[in-house]
Amino acid sequence: MKNYIKTDEWSIVEEGFDPHLNKISESIFSLGNGHMGQRANFEEAYSGETLQGNYVAGVYYPDKTRVGWWKNGYPEYFAKVLNAANWVGIDVVINGEQLDLAKCKVIAFKRTLNMQHGYLERAFTAQLANGNQVNVNAKRFCSIVDEEAAAIRYAITPLNFSGEIKFTAFIDGDVSNADANYDEKFWDHVYHQVSGNDNYLTLKTRKTNFEVCTGSRFAVTQGGKALAVEAKGFEKEKYTASSFVTSATQGQETVVYKYACNVSSQNYEPQQLLAACKSVIERVAAKGFETMLAEQADAWLKKWAESDIVITGDASAQQGIRFNIFQLSQTYSGKDARLNIGPKGFTGEKYGGSTYWDTEAYCVPFYLATAPQQVTKNLLIYRYKQLDKAIENAAKLGFDKGAALYPMVTMNGEECHNEWEITFEEIHRNGAIAYAIFNYIRYTGDKDYLNDYGLEVLIGITRFWKQRVNWSNAKKQYVMLGVTGPNEYENNINNNWYTSTLATWCMEYTIEALAYVKANDADKYQTLLGRLNFNEAEETATWQHIISNMYYGEDKELGIYLQQDNFLDKEIIHVKDLPAASRPLNQKWSWDRILRSCFIKQADVLQGFYFFKDKFDTDTLRRNYNFYEPLTVHESSLSPCIHAILASRLGLEEDAYNFYLRTSRLDLDDYNNDTEDGLHITSMAGTWMSVVEGFAGMHVADDTLKFEPFLPGKWQSFSFNIGFRQNMLNVKIVANGVHIVNVSGGDITVNIFGKDVIIMAGAEAFAAQ
Amino acid sequence: MKNYIKTDEWSIVEEGFDPHLNKISESIFSLGNGHMGQRANFEEAYSGETLQGNYVAGVYYPDKTRVGWWKNGYPEYFAKVLNAANWVGIDVVINGEQLDLAKCKVIAFKRTLNMQHGYLERAFTAQLANGNQVNVNAKRFCSIVDEEAAAIRYAITPLNFSGEIKFTAFIDGDVSNADANYDEKFWDHVYHQVSGNDNYLTLKTRKTNFEVCTGSRFAVTQGGKALAVEAKGFEKEKYTASSFVTSATQGQETVVYKYACNVSSQNYEPQQLLAACKSVIERVAAKGFETMLAEQADAWLKKWAESDIVITGDASAQQGIRFNIFQLSQTYSGKDARLNIGPKGFTGEKYGGSTYWDTEAYCVPFYLATAPQQVTKNLLIYRYKQLDKAIENAAKLGFDKGAALYPMVTMNGEECHNEWEITFEEIHRNGAIAYAIFNYIRYTGDKDYLNDYGLEVLIGITRFWKQRVNWSNAKKQYVMLGVTGPNEYENNINNNWYTSTLATWCMEYTIEALAYVKANDADKYQTLLGRLNFNEAEETATWQHIISNMYYGEDKELGIYLQQDNFLDKEIIHVKDLPAASRPLNQKWSWDRILRSCFIKQADVLQGFYFFKDKFDTDTLRRNYNFYEPLTVHESSLSPCIHAILASRLGLEEDAYNFYLRTSRLDLDDYNNDTEDGLHITSMAGTWMSVVEGFAGMHVADDTLKFEPFLPGKWQSFSFNIGFRQNMLNVKIVANGVHIVNVSGGDITVNIFGKDVIIMAGAEAFAAQ
Repeated sequence: MKNYIKTDEWSIVEEGFDPHLNKISESIFSLGNGHMGQRANFEEAYSGETLQGNYVAGVYYPDKTRVGWWKNGYPEYFAKVLNAANWVGIDVVINGEQLDLAKCKVIAFKRTLNMQHGYLERAFTAQLANGNQVNVNAKRFCSIVDEEAAAIRYAITPLNFSGEIKFTAFIDGDVSNADANYDEKFWDHVYHQVSGNDNYLTLKTRKTNFEVCTGSRFAVTQGGKALAVEAKGFEKEKYTASSFVTSATQGQETVVYKYACNVSSQNYEPQQLLAACKSVIERVAAKGFETMLAEQADAWLKKWAESDIVITGDASAQQGIRFNIFQLSQTYSGKDARLNIGPKGFTGEKYGGSTYWDTEAYCVPFYLATAPQQVTKNLLIYRYKQLDKAIENAAKLGFDKGAALYPMVTMNGEECHNEWEITFEEIHRNGAIAYAIFNYIRYTGDKDYLNDYGLEVLIGITRFWKQRVNWSNAKKQYVMLGVTGPNEYENNINNNWYTSTLATWCMEYTIEALAYVKANDADKYQTLLGRLNFNEAEETATWQHIISNMYYGEDKELGIYLQQDNFLDKEIIHVKDLPAASRPLNQKWSWDRILRSCFIKQADVLQGFYFFKDKFDTDTLRRNYNFYEPLTVHESSLSPCIHAILASRLGLEEDAYNFYLRTSRLDLDDYNNDTEDGLHITSMAGTWMSVVEGFAGMHVADDTLKFEPFLPGKWQSFSFNIGFRQNMLNVKIVANGVHIVNVSGGDITVNIFGKDVIIMAGAEAFAAQ
Repeated sequence: MKNYIKTDEWSIVEEGFDPHLNKISESIFSLGNGHMGQRANFEEAYSGETLQGNYVAGVYYPDKTRVGWWKNGYPEYFAKVLNAANWVGIDVVINGEQLDLAKCKVIAFKRTLNMQHGYLERAFTAQLANGNQVNVNAKRFCSIVDEEAAAIRYAITPLNFSGEIKFTAFIDGDVSNADANYDEKFWDHVYHQVSGNDNYLTLKTRKTNFEVCTGSRFAVTQGGKALAVEAKGFEKEKYTASSFVTSATQGQETVVYKYACNVSSQNYEPQQLLAACKSVIERVAAKGFETMLAEQADAWLKKWAESDIVITGDASAQQGIRFNIFQLSQTYSGKDARLNIGPKGFTGEKYGGSTYWDTEAYCVPFYLATAPQQVTKNLLIYRYKQLDKAIENAAKLGFDKGAALYPMVTMNGEECHNEWEITFEEIHRNGAIAYAIFNYIRYTGDKDYLNDYGLEVLIGITRFWKQRVNWSNAKKQYVMLGVTGPNEYENNINNNWYTSTLATWCMEYTIEALAYVKANDADKYQTLLGRLNFNEAEETATWQHIISNMYYGEDKELGIYLQQDNFLDKEIIHVKDLPAASRPLNQKWSWDRILRSCFIKQADVLQGFYFFKDKFDTDTLRRNYNFYEPLTVHESSLSPCIHAILASRLGLEEDAYNFYLRTSRLDLDDYNNDTEDGLHITSMAGTWMSVVEGFAGMHVADDTLKFEPFLPGKWQSFSFNIGFRQNMLNVKIVANGVHIVNVSGGDITVNIFGKDVIIMAGAEAFAAQ
């Protein structure tokens, strides 16, 4: 755990330069705009420790998988998000010596991520070995207005000399992934072009044949005035650069503006890429850096108006929650239904940048409440488009008749994770995908989503569950054998309560969905059923039989559901009684010991209570919480948020707050010593959930937004904006109650502390605790 | 499945040359003498498909492990038996053209493995591209008399020309393992020496620093007379050769004798290796090839006298069983307690050449009955010597206080297998190691083994079991969670009946062993207890409590033991009802599907019935056999033998015979299409067991050898020699009963069909069925 980030409500600030922290800061100060993103690598040369990272959304490589003992069914590849061409590079040579902070005396250094306006700034004073001192101020951003574009303002001022500075603005495509399984390079050169201040480089991925054209143009000012320079082009394979030399006068600022663009063959025909890239560069260079930055700030202010959480009385918590919201917003813009949210977003390579169930279980609630409806809809359509692959995936595992099993990890709908106990058995992800459809419709009211997309996905998923259970002659009930639940510290268990509960819920919901579509769009219904070869009477009767006869383990005496069969055969020890030297278990205990222990990696039975709030009474929740929470080690970043929400439901305010603390500054404080690999993007949505669904007790039932809030003891207040259907609300929780301002155009009924309150357009309501 | 091997009762014969079969034949015709061994690669150059293999027992390399997802506790390396220097090489150039069967017209070809006398012979007629025709006859063997030595007689006769033949006798150490995880080379060059007809090459393994000196000397005759040749030496790194040219006359045989030797730093100081190697070469070259071969034949005849099984009326079965006995005898001589039996012996690389539980569970019975007592004792002492490592291994997994867990796969006592579900959970191997001690003593009567070695191992093992079970509050009994039984088509199961039964049996046997040693060698007992910090009263009381309160799953209605908890939740389908397209399951079904199915890879509950014959009555065996056998796919080569024995016990003679057929010619007929990787050495012991413990119903109880034989329907008779304590018996089963000749010096009481019979020294008994 590190604590070097300065507290600031709107910015992330690092002061002083410690090379050992650089890879962590490269992750924390990452930039992104949904279309592309990057780690906070330096523009100028840096020979110290660094993980170079530039990413273009949706561009991946199927890296050959690596296993110890091949098991039938393993996928041939593991898709990697690709480290793409570096477009930030501006090499600086001062009087013949290269500027490189690893070789300089760094006199002052400040790095700031301005979250309010969406840009990164780095200011430093450095002294080179030749004694030359310079001030540098570098600002850059990935535009959320022009998503294919980015811009850099790189300003350098000689402090104690006048002399010659040589700049080389380059695009370097000779890059590789640090996590490549066999040290392969994934990009081939296609073409490059350099003319004057412009550079273009097109690369193509091996195997997947994605083409990406990266372009840049630079402009220079000196003492505030445009400076014409004579640029020399240089090209080699996968690399293009323009160099120029300026005379720099002591005390006078030279500024290099670099406008950059990434366009990919996902959006253009390959032969149009160069022209498209040039056109973007023309357009943004014409705007100029300051205009682009002003537009960027405006656009970010609008995002914040929809999604901000304001905490008073706790600047550190304020910074933490804004950082989470900022990074989530940088990762996914919701404009492209082919994209999704990788666990590290654009901030690192780990977990391959692929899609996990994190999206449906943790990110959907955030985007539902803080972004236009279409954003979440696109996340759902992403899975709809991959339904065929999910059916293929199930077929590879022996299922048939249209059964669909969505992959655990994917780029294009194909499974690419190769650990049998997770890949083949952690099938609850299939249920989360169905649940997200339910959740989306519950929140938005957009039931017609079922007609167009939802029902087809639900049928595929339910057909899978139907084949995945079997009749137990011993139990005279249906059982589900050989699964791994959300608690990945168990493998190949039987009758995981969460998975079984989710499976029969899917069946129920699919039957409901069938009825809705049948009643509301009979033609579509008939067409769909025909296409899917769906025998309504027979299939739904089987589902009903399973719903009515499913086995769920429980212990009547303890009044709890059993995470899996024979859970109570384990030796029950509480986490608090474990020696500190045993933690984290996944680094201290061998895998078999973890497996046979009672310790839970992340919410499992309790994840079910989170999903199905209305199915269980509070006493049942309390008994299960009291049993399972003390066994949970939260060694997944996705665990504490669920516990924060359930503790809130149970009125365990202090517990809830403590769980919140474990997620909100996870990366800022490098809690798990792994921030250098990238940020925990999807768990950031969980932090948001802890505040809004936990502390504010927000949930939706009967088409109504409901709140059962409390104020964490250390806070003076917290407030947030929530979009709900056509309305926008500002919700502020204070010590003695909750204020809700209806900032939208129509009236709305909300339920606070169990009572319905009508709030007129523009009006404010207050409900006392 | 191939059927190209000619039937012959004493030899393995291949006629005609099919390059596609060459790698299979290289396995089948392998040679070995316990100290070294090799695949049947050609002496002369061969540019076709081949897997080069020369192995020196006990010389291994810790190859860096390769996994997909690292789990805590995985070993850093996987030990590989090393492909060592090739010493058979004799390059032949005829009138300027290299002899290479891949490039010749092969006019006649016959390869013979003479099992009776222990040598390999290859005779062929080939025509080179230049039209020259030659006859070649190559004989070679690894001496079981001089175990560090081997010899080759390579004879070549020009058929249609006279001319020049250039021979190059070489030692090539620039070799690698085909199964290297990262294509590394494992040997470093130390030194070479060539002088006249002698070549010496010393190599050292990386990391493990084993040194092996390989030497050779050649001699030449022409027309039966010694020929002095002028040899030219040639050396390069990891390679040394001597070349000479002869004038060959049409019809006249030129013979190159090559005497070879491998000495290793396991038996000599590194600086003595060269001298030791030279001394062996001097000695065997002085003997000469024909003398060596005669000694070899004598020694093999003696081995056969101890271990042969003679079948009349079924030449194919006769060849099959002799092949199994021959290869087992080639693999392990029992002279060196540091060595053990790899699943492929000296015939290939697969499974790393390491030691598995196969040794204790399958090989020990064979060596007990067919080799001097010391041979099995050395196999046991191998584990005794590795007890410290087993304690370290257990400590890595969280056990303490002297608990010992023997590795699943090992070269030196350290675990080197990296699949958690097997490495950490297939702990029944620990029980097999205890069982082998019991089995050895039951067979030999050598109870004092307990004083010197056995008890210490048993205490370590039992301490492990004690810590590995836990008290279940739910069951109010001890349970054993998270194991994999012998049936590797289940992972991470609870209360595997076989493992639990073995665990408590170990406790019982250790208590018995304590009492024996206490009574028979009180001093040793006290010393040992002190050294092990063994609290007799407390530890044995705990064991007794576990013995009395252990949980074993059973189904009273079916009258069977449950392979594991909740086994009857599975859908029960018989193997015979599976579509042919589903077999073998491990190639056709994904792993998760296999796991949740009821199908059994190899005997599991039934393995327990095999081990503990006297604990269960025949009706119980029958019920369990009838339940589990139809669910067993026998996709392990170790499975059918156990079923053959149990079917024999149940009087299911035809079933027993059919199971026998599945193992006896597994490699000769390449039943599983994998013989090219090497032979299934350890399962060969199972074939022997099928005949002797199955058909002949041999077992030991109350210090008495017992037989309950039957004659498989297709055979006229079968007979075998059995050493039992001080006696040697020849047992012959015929249609109407069994003849037993006591060929040893003392009287013996044997029990046949339940009746004790005294057979005087040299006398014969007959018992009618």
